[in-house]
Amino acid sequence: MFEAAEVGRKLSKEQYKTQLPVVRAELLAVQQQLHGAHFPVIVLFAGVDAAGKSETASLLNEWMDPRWIVTRGYMDPSDEDLERPRLWRYWRDLPPHGRIALFLSAWYSSPIRDRVARRTTTSEFDVLLDEIAAFERALTDDGAVVLKFWMHLGKAAQKKRFKAFEKDPLRRWRVTKQSWKHWHMFDRFVAAADRAIRKTSTEQAPWHIVEGEDERYRSIVVGTALRDGIRRALERASATTRATTTRRKTSRAASGSGSTLEKIERTFNVLDELDMRQRLDPRTFDTALEKEQGRLNLLQRKASAQGISTIVVFEGWDAAGKGGAIRRVTGALDARDYQVIAIGPPTDEERVRHYLWRFWRHLSRAGRITVFDRSWYGRVLVERVEGFATEREYRRAFGEIEHFEEQLVADGILLVKFWIHITKDEQLKRFRERRRTAHKRWKITEDDWRNRARWADYVIAVDEMVARTSTQVAPWVLVEGNDKNFARIKVLKTLADGLERRIKS
Amino acid sequence: MFEAAEVGRKLSKEQYKTQLPVVRAELLAVQQQLHGAHFPVIVLFAGVDAAGKSETASLLNEWMDPRWIVTRGYMDPSDEDLERPRLWRYWRDLPPHGRIALFLSAWYSSPIRDRVARRTTTSEFDVLLDEIAAFERALTDDGAVVLKFWMHLGKAAQKKRFKAFEKDPLRRWRVTKQSWKHWHMFDRFVAAADRAIRKTSTEQAPWHIVEGEDERYRSIVVGTALRDGIRRALERASATTRATTTRRKTSRAASGSGSTLEKIERTFNVLDELDMRQRLDPRTFDTALEKEQGRLNLLQRKASAQGISTIVVFEGWDAAGKGGAIRRVTGALDARDYQVIAIGPPTDEERVRHYLWRFWRHLSRAGRITVFDRSWYGRVLVERVEGFATEREYRRAFGEIEHFEEQLVADGILLVKFWIHITKDEQLKRFRERRRTAHKRWKITEDDWRNRARWADYVIAVDEMVARTSTQVAPWVLVEGNDKNFARIKVLKTLADGLERRIKS
Repeated sequence: MFEAAEVGRKLSKEQYKTQLPVVRAELLAVQQQLHGAHFPVIVLFAGVDAAGKSETASLLNEWMDPRWIVTRGYMDPSDEDLERPRLWRYWRDLPPHGRIALFLSAWYSSPIRDRVARRTTTSEFDVLLDEIAAFERALTDDGAVVLKFWMHLGKAAQKKRFKAFEKDPLRRWRVTKQSWKHWHMFDRFVAAADRAIRKTSTEQAPWHIVEGEDERYRSIVVGTALRDGIRRALERASATTRATTTRRKTSRAASGSGSTLEKIERTFNVLDELDMRQRLDPRTFDTALEKEQGRLNLLQRKASAQGISTIVVFEGWDAAGKGGAIRRVTGALDARDYQVIAIGPPTDEERVRHYLWRFWRHLSRAGRITVFDRSWYGRVLVERVEGFATEREYRRAFGEIEHFEEQLVADGILLVKFWIHITKDEQLKRFRERRRTAHKRWKITEDDWRNRARWADYVIAVDEMVARTSTQVAPWVLVEGNDKNFARIKVLKTLADGLERRIKS
Repeated sequence: MFEAAEVGRKLSKEQYKTQLPVVRAELLAVQQQLHGAHFPVIVLFAGVDAAGKSETASLLNEWMDPRWIVTRGYMDPSDEDLERPRLWRYWRDLPPHGRIALFLSAWYSSPIRDRVARRTTTSEFDVLLDEIAAFERALTDDGAVVLKFWMHLGKAAQKKRFKAFEKDPLRRWRVTKQSWKHWHMFDRFVAAADRAIRKTSTEQAPWHIVEGEDERYRSIVVGTALRDGIRRALERASATTRATTTRRKTSRAASGSGSTLEKIERTFNVLDELDMRQRLDPRTFDTALEKEQGRLNLLQRKASAQGISTIVVFEGWDAAGKGGAIRRVTGALDARDYQVIAIGPPTDEERVRHYLWRFWRHLSRAGRITVFDRSWYGRVLVERVEGFATEREYRRAFGEIEHFEEQLVADGILLVKFWIHITKDEQLKRFRERRRTAHKRWKITEDDWRNRARWADYVIAVDEMVARTSTQVAPWVLVEGNDKNFARIKVLKTLADGLERRIKS
């Protein structure tokens, strides 16, 4: 694969002088246009040591306006990074719409290094590459431009470059024992890179292999590719805007009729299977509450000591009793050990990034419980029903959510998801009661009545959500919530059981 | 000081039962009202082990809506924390307006522990307490409600409590060897706490000493104090809103006439002292650029290896050449080693917090250079001149900025501040040129012309800024910018000199 990047491509000083001002001016111009766009640009530099990765990143900062560029080079992960899933630190740094991020030694770096050093097997390596491909797909599906540059040098050329660096007092530091050690493993390195590039070159996020020997050549090549990548995305975006109005109308009508059809087809759904008459009398409840809260408290302390994090998702109808259930959970815990994250409308920093960003940012350090009161499932519930997400977006979300949760679980996090269910009659009863009771009145708003009117649409959405995202690693727990006592104990017990299974005794 | 908290205050079960529902309902009610308010509530729990700090925090989460409460318990700092000033992790967690934060073992914890263990001297302890007091003042000045609870137990009561815990399987874990070790140092602990409380009890952020022996008593006391604290702040806020309209008018007029007066008085200012004719011919510039960039590169690598972070602030007139100077600095650096932060209008997450929060959040890990293109000085420049900050706010900012910068410098960060100066004529020339040149046209907006019209007001603001914030630890460097070459070399050289002085060879 790399043969074409070992032939000694060059640009003469004159060629460079002619092309440079054009490329710079055009890069500046597309950067300007990008400001108003609704997508970010993510540029990845990987490749052979001394092939010009950081020089090129510096040059781009010089050519363009560095205030709108985020440059990040990754070293060894910090202890905060290590306590979260591998991709957390990259999510954390994702640029907002309209900006360009230059990432060096990012998500490909340690998978390749680990493979070269034989710390991982080929199949472990493949799993990591699949994870990366899914991550990049989530970004590009969301509109991000992802450009990946593999800066290459042949083995002989790298040696020559190292020797030259060693003579230059300004660059001597860049050649270490480590560099030469790597040089001796050049063939292994190239083999791993070859595999990585093949497995992660997609139409949306292709690799560009750039011969790095000649600084002028590689700079112009990268600059041009970046300009073209942004330009194409801008054209695509403006074409989409023009087409949107027409398409919206059609899709509205279609989805309307579709949902009627769906309603007829799905007279049965998973929520109908629940035995909604289940209750607990107050006395049994008191005993059970004490017991389960005690269990949970003990188990969470063990989990905390073992560095096991827990994420608990609460979804459910308005007035289903999510808040009450959450308070029974947190009431059993040390206040230092948990965090309740209420998901409302996104802030503007969240709005200009991938919709999963706002959940990644709340992942806690090891050993804590994070409770999400509503969650990433908003995408396939309220956003679907209210039309805030297009059909394509919420359909895509099923896969993205699955992938997100796989990463949580693979990282050792215990993930528990509750859908608290109540019947439509029970909801009405509770709404009325809330209106009557002074200190509960704030809990009931116009939105609640509006959502209630769309009950049937929500039933379809919930049914599909459960069907699509109840995976083996993260199954949904449906909680019969007409009786609050019953629901609370079921939540506590499920959570404690989950912890018990996970903890190493 | 603690005698009154060792007398065995209690609430009977009946008293508790009567008071509880009232306090809960009122707490919920004030929490509701708080939603719409423009200030946060910060509650600190400190005190004797086993006096009920975390129990009380849990209870407040149960009594109120936990979705709008942020609870944080601090353990040992992470390596990311350790690479930043001591208060960074608390700034990071500050709640937005309308929310309540419960902080456990927060900023008082390690100063007191270090003093008890004799790791610090009394005067070092005092310095830390002063730092805390200034931090809390910045918060309360900004409108935050800060409530501090010292949960107390006498020595005998603590022993009794430990013994009781040891018998309870649910709480046994809380009593460790460490706990008994601390118990033996009870008197020292109380002495340190006494000093801390005396030195940091202010009208705005007073300490409440709460006897912790009886759970019912302490819960009601804290709940009531919290309710009252929020209530008073809400009343104050609504009183202010009512009074604002009248006051605004008066203050506008006053500040208008004031600034005319100031103009007459200050015919001389610091900017007039600059020799604006200084130039560098292109040949000297080329040689100097290569030399200074090389120096900077070498020095930054040493600094990075020694974990020395640098913060560079660029302020200056529109079109003064900040961008060009920044590019000459970053051009000398490895892209992995720096970050350029462009300060524009705040995001909504920033707008609902103290104005310094957005700068704290960008402090980098150790060994990096962070370049601020405009900075916290916006408060005393554009916000002052445009009236976005009231006179009280920007006057207060001088002290807050000084305190902020002291913390940076005390943490070992090299702080360099540039004001790039050009004359009014030179600015006009550059504006016109920008309008003429296609690829520079985006750089010039209506805002620039508007700012230019207020040149005289800015001169006053800059003059005062330099006078007030050119401290020994962080002096301003005024850069004569009419000749870009001269300015760029002065910037590079100043920065390199600063690094050179700081680095241990």
